[in-house]
Amino acid sequence: MSEAQAFAAHSEQSGLAPFTLERRALRPDDVAIDIDYCGVCHTDIHFAQNDWGMTQYPVVPGHEIVGRVSAVGDAVTGFRPGDVVGVGCMVDACRQCEPCQEGLEQYCIEGPTLTYNGQDRHDHSITFGGYSEAIVVSDRFVVNIPEQLDPAAAAPLLCAGITTYSPLRHYGVKAGDKVGVIGMGGLGHMGIKFAKALGAEVTVFTRSENKVDEAKSQGAEHVIVSTDEAQMEAAAGSFDFMLDTVPVQHDLNPYLALLRHDGTHILVGLVEPIEPALHAGSLIFGRRVLAGSLIGGMPETQEVLDFCAKHDITCDVEMLDIHNINAAYERVKQGDVKYRFVIDMATLKGNG
Amino acid sequence: MSEAQAFAAHSEQSGLAPFTLERRALRPDDVAIDIDYCGVCHTDIHFAQNDWGMTQYPVVPGHEIVGRVSAVGDAVTGFRPGDVVGVGCMVDACRQCEPCQEGLEQYCIEGPTLTYNGQDRHDHSITFGGYSEAIVVSDRFVVNIPEQLDPAAAAPLLCAGITTYSPLRHYGVKAGDKVGVIGMGGLGHMGIKFAKALGAEVTVFTRSENKVDEAKSQGAEHVIVSTDEAQMEAAAGSFDFMLDTVPVQHDLNPYLALLRHDGTHILVGLVEPIEPALHAGSLIFGRRVLAGSLIGGMPETQEVLDFCAKHDITCDVEMLDIHNINAAYERVKQGDVKYRFVIDMATLKGNG
Repeated sequence: MSEAQAFAAHSEQSGLAPFTLERRALRPDDVAIDIDYCGVCHTDIHFAQNDWGMTQYPVVPGHEIVGRVSAVGDAVTGFRPGDVVGVGCMVDACRQCEPCQEGLEQYCIEGPTLTYNGQDRHDHSITFGGYSEAIVVSDRFVVNIPEQLDPAAAAPLLCAGITTYSPLRHYGVKAGDKVGVIGMGGLGHMGIKFAKALGAEVTVFTRSENKVDEAKSQGAEHVIVSTDEAQMEAAAGSFDFMLDTVPVQHDLNPYLALLRHDGTHILVGLVEPIEPALHAGSLIFGRRVLAGSLIGGMPETQEVLDFCAKHDITCDVEMLDIHNINAAYERVKQGDVKYRFVIDMATLKGNG
Repeated sequence: MSEAQAFAAHSEQSGLAPFTLERRALRPDDVAIDIDYCGVCHTDIHFAQNDWGMTQYPVVPGHEIVGRVSAVGDAVTGFRPGDVVGVGCMVDACRQCEPCQEGLEQYCIEGPTLTYNGQDRHDHSITFGGYSEAIVVSDRFVVNIPEQLDPAAAAPLLCAGITTYSPLRHYGVKAGDKVGVIGMGGLGHMGIKFAKALGAEVTVFTRSENKVDEAKSQGAEHVIVSTDEAQMEAAAGSFDFMLDTVPVQHDLNPYLALLRHDGTHILVGLVEPIEPALHAGSLIFGRRVLAGSLIGGMPETQEVLDFCAKHDITCDVEMLDIHNINAAYERVKQGDVKYRFVIDMATLKGNG
């Protein structure tokens, strides 16, 4: 066991504050990591505030973690001290079920162990995430960060990146496909980059005329203002895929009408009931598909990092001093970040 | 032009009554058919009663048509007088768009010309369906009825059959897959037969304990009473596909929970808004898919007939004198038919 400095929320309204936690002694398959960077995901805020009623306090958020290996357990062969590595949303799973055996640990039948607010499968302790100077993780859930990538800008690839990459790959998005990206936050801007890198013709949907230039600067070839009925009607039946990153309830029906026959609308941000009601006829007439997708498995999480290295893709980030985390949360809630805050963990160590 | 005897509805409440209609003179690609049998689809009732607000009276329903070729146009090479042939839900389409070129005329971008209550693309007349002694249809929309099939019991294959066969084929249902069939009417009982013929392990979902024996007699290996929570919970996460033939609003969420990861829930009966609301989380956690499917294209409509000949599959039918059509409609509305009425058109000619 060893102590590590971290930031934790202690109640629904407390905000985040310094916290000292215990890191477990290394198990044979464990990798100990000194954390350099951790992305700030909207999910962190939901857990810190207990928006979903499942938070166990104190909670140390953070599941977009990049750091350097400080030590490894006796059985670890894939990592050595000094390696630059990453940890995403999961730190364990049952490893036995069909999804686990397929490398789809995110769909583990027992449920994967989440990086924070999860329960360790061995000692049943609550897991603490990446807003910390160190973390200990089983090697199966650690990935290599390719040296070509800026490690700070690579951190959000562990959640925002894999979440958008995985469904584009699963559904076989390819050169010439017309892909719409709905929403232009942390997830959406990564979706644009991946769809373009896969050769697709990318259209960004935004609710505001003011964001057209920004969408184009992100690489969108076309921008449709979703509140403009004429623009929406002109696009009817023309998309192969719609990557929907919007995390709040919204009407899917106008977007389903934009899909061609056999087109697929992919939800990656919404976990709420779908309201207003989805019209079944929109799926039947056109053999359209509504699909969901959750992060990605460990092999694919390594794959997205290698893909990003090859295609020179990282997340657009704003570096953050961890002492400003509560203000950063407020800005995330306002959508005021382009496109992801990444905590520079040196700011924690310097003041720990 | 020639006259044909038929049955038509003349207003929302009129019911069906004898009607004399004009059949067009043969165009070069036309096939004239003397109708022997016509299945009774619930859609016929919706159109006769104008449930969807789009009926143009008089309407001659019927889109599960089997008969014999009486004459062909000059350019027709695929059919000869005497051939036993079928006509389904469509009699034309634009033939130019991408879906049409893929043989998916049901998804024609302009919309296919429906067999009844459609508008002919040449003379703009309203199309009349199969409750008639004769019909004239362009050869692309005529299929061969294999001689191994009982022609009366083959008629419902043109709608109920292809509607359930097409998605099972499109999604690649194969030996060993676990398929659930929801609903046990005209569509559902065909879905059971096709899923079994494709090698799947079939479970029927019924709301009533009383229908368990009936479901097993239809070939289901397992039956789940959907109102029994314990039975539903025991099946969680175990199905590859759910073929949902229910034509009225119902809660999809309990069924989505029964799908394994990457499982697909296929809607073929529902065209209403989906209420109660679908939980997006049910799709995201498990990468599940909600899909729709509409009848099938012309190549696949021929394929299902050939598949049925090979696998000795037809629809379970109750033969009907056309003069009893209004009473039969009431029975269909009560679900009191196993599983499809088929009009013996000799009853029309004998009393025409």
